[in-house]
Amino acid sequence: MVYVGVIGASGRSAPPPQVLAAAEQAGRALARAGAVVVCGGGDGVMESVSRGVADGGGHCVGLLPGARRQEGNAFLSIAIATALGDARNAVIVSASDVLIAIGVGLGTLSEIALALGAGKHVVGLQTWDLLNTHEHMHAARDPEEAVRLALALEGGP
Amino acid sequence: MVYVGVIGASGRSAPPPQVLAAAEQAGRALARAGAVVVCGGGDGVMESVSRGVADGGGHCVGLLPGARRQEGNAFLSIAIATALGDARNAVIVSASDVLIAIGVGLGTLSEIALALGAGKHVVGLQTWDLLNTHEHMHAARDPEEAVRLALALEGGP
Amino acid sequence: MVYVGVIGASGRSAPPPQVLAAAEQAGRALARAGAVVVCGGGDGVMESVSRGVADGGGHCVGLLPGARRQEGNAFLSIAIATALGDARNAVIVSASDVLIAIGVGLGTLSEIALALGAGKHVVGLQTWDLLNTHEHMHAARDPEEAVRLALALEGGP
Amino acid sequence: MVYVGVIGASGRSAPPPQVLAAAEQAGRALARAGAVVVCGGGDGVMESVSRGVADGGGHCVGLLPGARRQEGNAFLSIAIATALGDARNAVIVSASDVLIAIGVGLGTLSEIALALGAGKHVVGLQTWDLLNTHEHMHAARDPEEAVRLALALEGGP
Repeated sequence: MVYVGVIGASGRSAPPPQVLAAAEQAGRALARAGAVVVCGGGDGVMESVSRGVADGGGHCVGLLPGARRQEGNAFLSIAIATALGDARNAVIVSASDVLIAIGVGLGTLSEIALALGAGKHVVGLQTWDLLNTHEHMHAARDPEEAVRLALALEGGP
Repeated sequence: MVYVGVIGASGRSAPPPQVLAAAEQAGRALARAGAVVVCGGGDGVMESVSRGVADGGGHCVGLLPGARRQEGNAFLSIAIATALGDARNAVIVSASDVLIAIGVGLGTLSEIALALGAGKHVVGLQTWDLLNTHEHMHAARDPEEAVRLALALEGGP
Repeated sequence: MVYVGVIGASGRSAPPPQVLAAAEQAGRALARAGAVVVCGGGDGVMESVSRGVADGGGHCVGLLPGARRQEGNAFLSIAIATALGDARNAVIVSASDVLIAIGVGLGTLSEIALALGAGKHVVGLQTWDLLNTHEHMHAARDPEEAVRLALALEGGP
Repeated sequence: MVYVGVIGASGRSAPPPQVLAAAEQAGRALARAGAVVVCGGGDGVMESVSRGVADGGGHCVGLLPGARRQEGNAFLSIAIATALGDARNAVIVSASDVLIAIGVGLGTLSEIALALGAGKHVVGLQTWDLLNTHEHMHAARDPEEAVRLALALEGGP
């Protein structure tokens, strides 16, 4: 079983519609491929990917920064209220075999950096381009390619 | 949905057979009641409760102290490699609405203390008796009673 | 240099005067012995030990659960706002070579359990007696003895 | 008192000599200004800034990722073995009022992103330029300017 972290901005930074749509499509494709999806459990990109996973009949785990599970979005299979604040970003990375970054957010950037630092692969979709030359950073053109790449990099289905 | 933390010693401290059997029964009863079970994901009591949950067709989330998901036991539905070391004990407590403590372990004791400190209810089964006078600590005679009590305290099914 | 964790209840649980006095004396003795003191940085026992350390001319590091350094007590040499919530208890234990537990608090109990679980020595002063039979748990009659014991156990001055 | 986080790559990524020299100068200037310096406590940029702080007679706190305090560099005033792994990056940010980023490292980038996300100011010196347009990101030409900027942004001395 492959655990794929999907990282992206919360609703507070108002991700554009095409980013949210990409997140939902990626979630659906990951669910169909049988991957376990790990995300931050909030709104914005996190909610969109969770909705896609739910729609595809898959499993989406949300690792929330706060202490209240009720703050998770409505589409999570499992919500873990970590109460760790921003330190939960490191847990999202640690729990994932490979990550897909969608859109530009500062939390997302922190997770990309931690993932690359830990030697994990990150597939980017409409995301920060600063790390394009890093050997573990891969650009995808659309959600389906992002999912294919992520699973191929991890030997997934 | 109720999230029930089940806490107990790892295999290293060799929990007695009746403690392991109680953990497995509790896991089965929790699965049948539709609760999500949260545990430390390792061996010993953690593995027994996970086996019970799997046998009952339920969901068991393991929050592992290390960075390698492969160190989780074979019966987890979801394994989260937190890489937080002992700080993951606090995450188990935070992620749970109510806890069932089975047997005597030092990690277990740390989690009981954190849970009571956070105002959560803990149902004890063959566990530390030092906190019996605490208003949120409840002694159960057998796994079924422990599960009934835990769910009743949380308004579960 | 020896790092001694001093753990005890916050002001919310109203520790009795003799517990607060013992904490202050322990802090003073630790400062005079040249130990670095690590504590939770808050009020109650934490504030008393910090006051003692300051009075003795020593160094006291407070590891706060919240994100605001200003919530630390006024006697800390260094205040670290961890923003980790209860997970900071594990950091207090990890940062200490040996611990002195003063009074009865649930957070204190969680830290005693984590410390013993990690193979560290804990010297108790008017604290939980449940673990008296554990080979790494040592009862002291007064703050001076507690400090002597803690330093001796760590090969300190 | 102002707490200034100084973040930069470990020795493993072989920071160039001018980056290490800049870190040492920044540490010396921060010490002279009376700031408390918070860093990751390791080698590379972390060791250079710690050496500068020690040389300037100041206080440098190292928040280490591992469980062994002995892994800290030799110039720390206080070494805190957090045992949190990469989650300790979030603690460095949380503990700092303002940050100075020196050189390019992935851990550094994760901390810049977390700091900006938390609304803190970051002064960059020979560091990632991707965030130059962020209103809380400030470029400095040399260590003295970096320290002046950081302290001015926080109302420090």
